[in-house]
Amino acid sequence: MANQDDKFKKVISHAKEYGYVFQSSEIYDGLSAVYDYAQNGAELKKNIRDYWWKAMVQMNENIVGIDAAIFMHPTTWKASGHVDAFNDPLIDNKDSKKRYRADVLIEDYCAKIEAKIDKEVAKAAKRFGEAFNKEEFLATNGRVVGYQEKINATLSRMGQSLEKEDLADVKALIEELEIADPLTGSKNWTDVKQFNLMFGTKLGASAESAMDLYLRPETAQGIFVNFLNVQKTGRMKIPFGIAQTGKAFRNEIVARQFIFRMREFEQMEMQFFIKPGTQVEWYNHWKETRMKWHLSLGMGADNYRFHDHDKLAHYADAAADIEFKFPFGFKELEGIHSRTDFDLKAHEKHSGKKLQYFDHEENKSYTPYVLETSIGLDRMFLAVFSNALQEEELENGTTRTVLKLPSVLAPVKAAILPLVKKDGLPEVARKIVEELKWDFNVIYDEKDAVGRRYRRQDANGTPFCITVDHDTLNDNTVTIRHRDSMEQERVNIDDLQKIIKQEVDVRTWLMKM
Amino acid sequence: MANQDDKFKKVISHAKEYGYVFQSSEIYDGLSAVYDYAQNGAELKKNIRDYWWKAMVQMNENIVGIDAAIFMHPTTWKASGHVDAFNDPLIDNKDSKKRYRADVLIEDYCAKIEAKIDKEVAKAAKRFGEAFNKEEFLATNGRVVGYQEKINATLSRMGQSLEKEDLADVKALIEELEIADPLTGSKNWTDVKQFNLMFGTKLGASAESAMDLYLRPETAQGIFVNFLNVQKTGRMKIPFGIAQTGKAFRNEIVARQFIFRMREFEQMEMQFFIKPGTQVEWYNHWKETRMKWHLSLGMGADNYRFHDHDKLAHYADAAADIEFKFPFGFKELEGIHSRTDFDLKAHEKHSGKKLQYFDHEENKSYTPYVLETSIGLDRMFLAVFSNALQEEELENGTTRTVLKLPSVLAPVKAAILPLVKKDGLPEVARKIVEELKWDFNVIYDEKDAVGRRYRRQDANGTPFCITVDHDTLNDNTVTIRHRDSMEQERVNIDDLQKIIKQEVDVRTWLMKM
Repeated sequence: MANQDDKFKKVISHAKEYGYVFQSSEIYDGLSAVYDYAQNGAELKKNIRDYWWKAMVQMNENIVGIDAAIFMHPTTWKASGHVDAFNDPLIDNKDSKKRYRADVLIEDYCAKIEAKIDKEVAKAAKRFGEAFNKEEFLATNGRVVGYQEKINATLSRMGQSLEKEDLADVKALIEELEIADPLTGSKNWTDVKQFNLMFGTKLGASAESAMDLYLRPETAQGIFVNFLNVQKTGRMKIPFGIAQTGKAFRNEIVARQFIFRMREFEQMEMQFFIKPGTQVEWYNHWKETRMKWHLSLGMGADNYRFHDHDKLAHYADAAADIEFKFPFGFKELEGIHSRTDFDLKAHEKHSGKKLQYFDHEENKSYTPYVLETSIGLDRMFLAVFSNALQEEELENGTTRTVLKLPSVLAPVKAAILPLVKKDGLPEVARKIVEELKWDFNVIYDEKDAVGRRYRRQDANGTPFCITVDHDTLNDNTVTIRHRDSMEQERVNIDDLQKIIKQEVDVRTWLMKM
Repeated sequence: MANQDDKFKKVISHAKEYGYVFQSSEIYDGLSAVYDYAQNGAELKKNIRDYWWKAMVQMNENIVGIDAAIFMHPTTWKASGHVDAFNDPLIDNKDSKKRYRADVLIEDYCAKIEAKIDKEVAKAAKRFGEAFNKEEFLATNGRVVGYQEKINATLSRMGQSLEKEDLADVKALIEELEIADPLTGSKNWTDVKQFNLMFGTKLGASAESAMDLYLRPETAQGIFVNFLNVQKTGRMKIPFGIAQTGKAFRNEIVARQFIFRMREFEQMEMQFFIKPGTQVEWYNHWKETRMKWHLSLGMGADNYRFHDHDKLAHYADAAADIEFKFPFGFKELEGIHSRTDFDLKAHEKHSGKKLQYFDHEENKSYTPYVLETSIGLDRMFLAVFSNALQEEELENGTTRTVLKLPSVLAPVKAAILPLVKKDGLPEVARKIVEELKWDFNVIYDEKDAVGRRYRRQDANGTPFCITVDHDTLNDNTVTIRHRDSMEQERVNIDDLQKIIKQEVDVRTWLMKM
């Protein structure tokens, strides 16, 4: 755990030091759970978005993209269920005036008991050595069994009360467990209340005509309300998909873990419209396809796993997460949801408009079922960035910090370095920049010894360093150094464009799917 | 004027019919002044954004891009002046309960007098024929001179009153001019009040800790607050620029003209940090450079003009617009502003943090001056789209509707068409799609006669149609048809990628700058 924290801290400080992620409004001491993408981060984020868009929209004849506004008619959120059901149960401590999520207080309480179990297990393991059987110990040790029963009973009661919206019982549970304000120890609690997570605002100036709006909490609904217009003007035939990327907003009470859970974030979603009855087949198809997309980036198959949902959201008949091993453990990176016809039917009901598809083959109209793939762009950024950051012991005993970003996603593809700042080498290097910049984001760097510049580019995530030296003037060749292997080769300047393209091109990477 | 309206209506209906722009939340009868980009519009918008980003960021070694959040610390907007000065003067009619911008009511009143002048001019021109001298008539005709004096006096008094924030006098002016509610004729007005155009929301759930936030009304401030972090981590040397694209929000009272003035819109801004004293030189440089960028798209030099501002905003010492000839006349498309050190100084003052640059050459610290280029992405979309939409009389007497989008921006680069749906032609066409889609957004279309498919792609803005016919099976050649000239040529399938790339590549177009 200490190691994980340590690693995560390094990720955050490296992200700032190398111009990937800054705290928002830092000069005003920041804004909680909001971050800005800096010069390298903006490019990395853009490249991830493009990689997704190419794979989902450009490569699939039957998927098109849209770009719907953040503002939507408020009835949209009635229909989607967000006005009524997108709530967190909150409780205030009367003494400290601090507010908490009631369910998180209870879960943290259970986590403490869990820690006690772990302690008992560790003690026993030490005592019994190789003879220790963990499964048997958990099942038979009286104290541990008691702890586990307490956890189960608590979580089960909380789950039932929340489902029934019996908030009085959630409060009763907190009082019975004698849960105290973690900051002050006070047990003086208010009632539990539901708090809607949507950000509200008002459209229009006149008191009579002002309209209560929400900042969209997800991009999916922008696709559903446009479904029929896209299908008709785009002459789409089922099965077909509509994709979009864009900002969404959630007024999270407990927003934390850097860019993993932010109040303003970006989603990359695709809704795939299908014939009712085919959802199991498409659910499996998209689970597999999306996992292949992740694996194409070469970040290690061990770092991914599926988590199938036991408890389903009100709109779903099947759901799974693709989880990634973040510095703080396996967490959701992408969701694949079989949403049935819940959303289209709900919008039909609230708008009074038919949202059906006429199937020429079947010669009948029906409301399509929907398969959704939904990935957080910021989470994907964190997955890529944290996985890439490595410290390597070198043969000479030193350590190098290297950001092994998939080269297709790297913000800067190549740094062009004159070995020295004289003898005409800078001019040749600049000429190479002038040529390569048409196709790639490249930089010129002449400051410090070349070894130091290599290290800087390693930490920056730049896949190639191209060094111009005195031989270049005679034979038109340069040294190209590969970030990950640190291997160097001598190549002709005229071949640079081709060599770099071969390694960083989207095609090269998507071919691995 | 009728023609203009007519053209504009065609633009709006074509945008919907061909999947470019839909009214937001149309199934809920729309949301005023908010629009969604549909399957073709999303691609066109993305291509415009990329074309700007490449020209501004990728091609300029000393310009980097960032992606700051929409949410910023509220003090940002105190410092920028938006909390105090980003207002519209509003007035309500007590009978109709309708709200208006007081200045727009007065301007509309003056426009009516202007129309009377135009009428007098037209009458006189008819009467005097070729002998008519408009300048002289305007200067000497008593009635016309009176009208013009009335307009001048009215606008001047309004300007002064607004500047002094003497809202009582603005109301007095409306009453003296006997301006009536344009809908009902009532002259029963409330006082004039300032209304802030920023959308507000609340961050956090607890009553005590909730923070009043604004949705950013411009992206520029996200660059200023990050200026020093970018300069330091990016090792930038003055002069250098920071660019970003992103959403901004303004609660416009009178939002109209389709996507020209929306409540939610996207900006593409670049702030260029320079040494104080060099601002005139850089102002001229960026005016010229930005105009070249527009002209590179080949939309006609006559459609652009500069408009230099006489009246400057509080932050500027020089400002000009690049105006474009929209269907409703010349209007602002992009602004170039010499912002001095107003913003950085204001953030220094409000944050208490130094925002200075240490100039190694001069061996001293100073607050940089700033040159801004700011373009509305949605306006650019409207400029490109409305300019491209043309109706051509063909030799055979028919009319074709063609969307002559610059091919670098076109959503779909090529449509691959089998001449007939049999004899193996669809299979060959699909094979071409499979190959080209790695590099371009292409589509397959086999429905209807090929002539009809050509017309459909013309109206869709697709620069190339590639037709597979029976000869293709023998000699591996296809017909490639050019949208604008309608010329067809026979080419080898293996050359298609190169031919298309040559025409649609960003390089080809940016080389024209």
